[in-house]
Amino acid sequence: MALIVQKYGGTSVGSIERIQHVADKVIAARQQGHDIVVVVSAMSGETNRLVALAKGISDPPKPREYDALLATGEQVTIGLLAIALEAKGCPARSYTGGQVRILTDNAFTKARILEIDDQTMRRDLAQGTVVVVAGFQGVDADGNITTLGRGGSDTTAVALAAALKADECQIYTDVDGVYTTDPRVVPTARRLDKISFEEMLEMASSGSKVLQIRSVEFAGKYNVPLRVLSSFEENSKGTLIAPEDASMEQVLISGIAFNRDEAKLTILGVPDKPGIAYQVLGGIAEANIEVDMIVQNIRTGSDTTDLTFTVHRNDYKKAFGILQDIAKQLQAQDVQGDDKIAKIALVGIGMRSHAGVASQMFKTLAEERINIQLISTSEIKISVVIDEKYLELAVRVLHQAFDLEKIPTL
Amino acid sequence: MALIVQKYGGTSVGSIERIQHVADKVIAARQQGHDIVVVVSAMSGETNRLVALAKGISDPPKPREYDALLATGEQVTIGLLAIALEAKGCPARSYTGGQVRILTDNAFTKARILEIDDQTMRRDLAQGTVVVVAGFQGVDADGNITTLGRGGSDTTAVALAAALKADECQIYTDVDGVYTTDPRVVPTARRLDKISFEEMLEMASSGSKVLQIRSVEFAGKYNVPLRVLSSFEENSKGTLIAPEDASMEQVLISGIAFNRDEAKLTILGVPDKPGIAYQVLGGIAEANIEVDMIVQNIRTGSDTTDLTFTVHRNDYKKAFGILQDIAKQLQAQDVQGDDKIAKIALVGIGMRSHAGVASQMFKTLAEERINIQLISTSEIKISVVIDEKYLELAVRVLHQAFDLEKIPTL
Repeated sequence: MALIVQKYGGTSVGSIERIQHVADKVIAARQQGHDIVVVVSAMSGETNRLVALAKGISDPPKPREYDALLATGEQVTIGLLAIALEAKGCPARSYTGGQVRILTDNAFTKARILEIDDQTMRRDLAQGTVVVVAGFQGVDADGNITTLGRGGSDTTAVALAAALKADECQIYTDVDGVYTTDPRVVPTARRLDKISFEEMLEMASSGSKVLQIRSVEFAGKYNVPLRVLSSFEENSKGTLIAPEDASMEQVLISGIAFNRDEAKLTILGVPDKPGIAYQVLGGIAEANIEVDMIVQNIRTGSDTTDLTFTVHRNDYKKAFGILQDIAKQLQAQDVQGDDKIAKIALVGIGMRSHAGVASQMFKTLAEERINIQLISTSEIKISVVIDEKYLELAVRVLHQAFDLEKIPTL
Repeated sequence: MALIVQKYGGTSVGSIERIQHVADKVIAARQQGHDIVVVVSAMSGETNRLVALAKGISDPPKPREYDALLATGEQVTIGLLAIALEAKGCPARSYTGGQVRILTDNAFTKARILEIDDQTMRRDLAQGTVVVVAGFQGVDADGNITTLGRGGSDTTAVALAAALKADECQIYTDVDGVYTTDPRVVPTARRLDKISFEEMLEMASSGSKVLQIRSVEFAGKYNVPLRVLSSFEENSKGTLIAPEDASMEQVLISGIAFNRDEAKLTILGVPDKPGIAYQVLGGIAEANIEVDMIVQNIRTGSDTTDLTFTVHRNDYKKAFGILQDIAKQLQAQDVQGDDKIAKIALVGIGMRSHAGVASQMFKTLAEERINIQLISTSEIKISVVIDEKYLELAVRVLHQAFDLEKIPTL
């Protein structure tokens, strides 16, 4: 008997019929003798409806109130799923984030989970009750309702799995696993049976939409085995995201992640002295804007430098304004920006012991005359920023160049 | 400077535009120097949408989960109204029933308020913040979300006004006050400037839909002056519901209330001995079904009796089943029921010192050949149950017979 946390996304609970289907899946898992905690998102379309109401009144809406509003989306789903489970004879209890005390900081609209009280859930599980928890939300220390930001329901699921020391955290979604790249862009993309936390983290941070990055961080940190599955296909085992093992190390590249959600900002001609990166990026961080890639170039023959970074495209205007203020303070030369960019990343733990991946990547792009605007590398990832219009072409040629459609031989 | 609790119903907050309008009204009251607590219902249509979702899955839905679901309706409105107020420069904070700890019992779907913690609200008011509270909901001692049942938002408003010792509780609705009877049935019905708690209580309990009965009980008990106003008409002062005063006593009949929400049940041939009413009605009460009228007839020349009572029409089937079980236990003769009935009540504190009201009422109905099925009287009310199809006719002739269209001369 295992303790399993299952998470169902908005599409999986998008109608009464689908909620009934989820209830059947939960009951099937329970009948195999498992204790089940279910985390659900808002029904698809519901969050958009609420966002439209709020923004019809004020844009941006006051964050504290916006969170109280958005949190209702998941609360509707937990009520409906618990009703469905009970109607099918399966004891179930629904809980909002506040009711199981998913304690977060008070960064409304993008709060972070600090602590989870597992008492209530354990009591229910001990009584054979299925616990149904609203994803995406929590409460701060003052009892204000908070939300976790984009994809927060995945994070809720993993955080609950960690708090409860669950045997597996299953993320049910509308795709049946993690692919070498987006099959809509590369039809020969292949589903991976297994991927390491580190690779998944890099895939997620580079825009693979299957899982939210924080959920993978959490899962890695607390060693929660994470499985991505389809809510609609019954026979796929999905992709298991787990600690690195021997077989994985043979694989050079696991996948190609990409996104168009970012925008690039450059501050030109800032004095090149210690602390300058902090002065520039500190102001951005204070505004709660997350920075992704950061590249600093040295200008030959000058005592100034240029600093380029990328932020989420939604934060572009705000970041641009802040950067202009910073530029004034630092007497920098200029601020430039571009929100028509795309980021592509090759990810693979095999990269650590293989040279030549970067040069193969650059050669492949050069052959298609695709200009690389920024490069950033980590131990298991090489990311480049290119003009948005070349994105699909670049992903296709890289997928082919690295033979990702083929099952790797061990 | 006064402390005013304002309550806006579903129609008043039924769209973004109307929520903006409510925000303007709140701000206007605040600019007159008042401290404002606002209680809101779900946007019109929203509760029905949620009910349809739940009942599409299971009917009846599990009460605890149903309440968690329905409570989202009001939570959406508090978020949106607080966003609107903040956008107009008025500091505001939204609270769910749980967040201001409106403590109730655990009778899901019809919970009763036990206690309210006014600390958070007082702190906000002291800082000049408008407090926006979700009506209709609370939490029980275990932190489960509860709802107060039909019209519960009025009850929330009055309970908050009582807890905060507010100077006035204003109920904004789509009618501009309390009328002598429903103007849709009697076009000459007249708006009352003032009515006593006792009369309003009898009006409400007899089906006048303007206010929910528990809210009037609360208001009377804690002496909270209650004003019913229109959200849409700017210049009407509505109807003030307040303690009885000298001028009111001159009025014979204040109004005619009626409803079609009830059903009649009779248990025939039960042994006529002490405790029998308790044995019959105790079982109904245990099922949390509210009983309205109760009439017991003595059968001449028999040691058995018949007991008739009315319940809400929604509870009819359930009550019928329970009554059949009770009949078996008591070896009663039969159980009969009718859900095609209507109740009409004449209400007026003047009745206490005037004889002849009942006989005038019965004469008026007899002249129209309307058969009276049940009669029940209180100090300031005479209620009769008749066949549903005569309802409108009966209300019209009674309104005329008692000259209710005329402003009373003092």
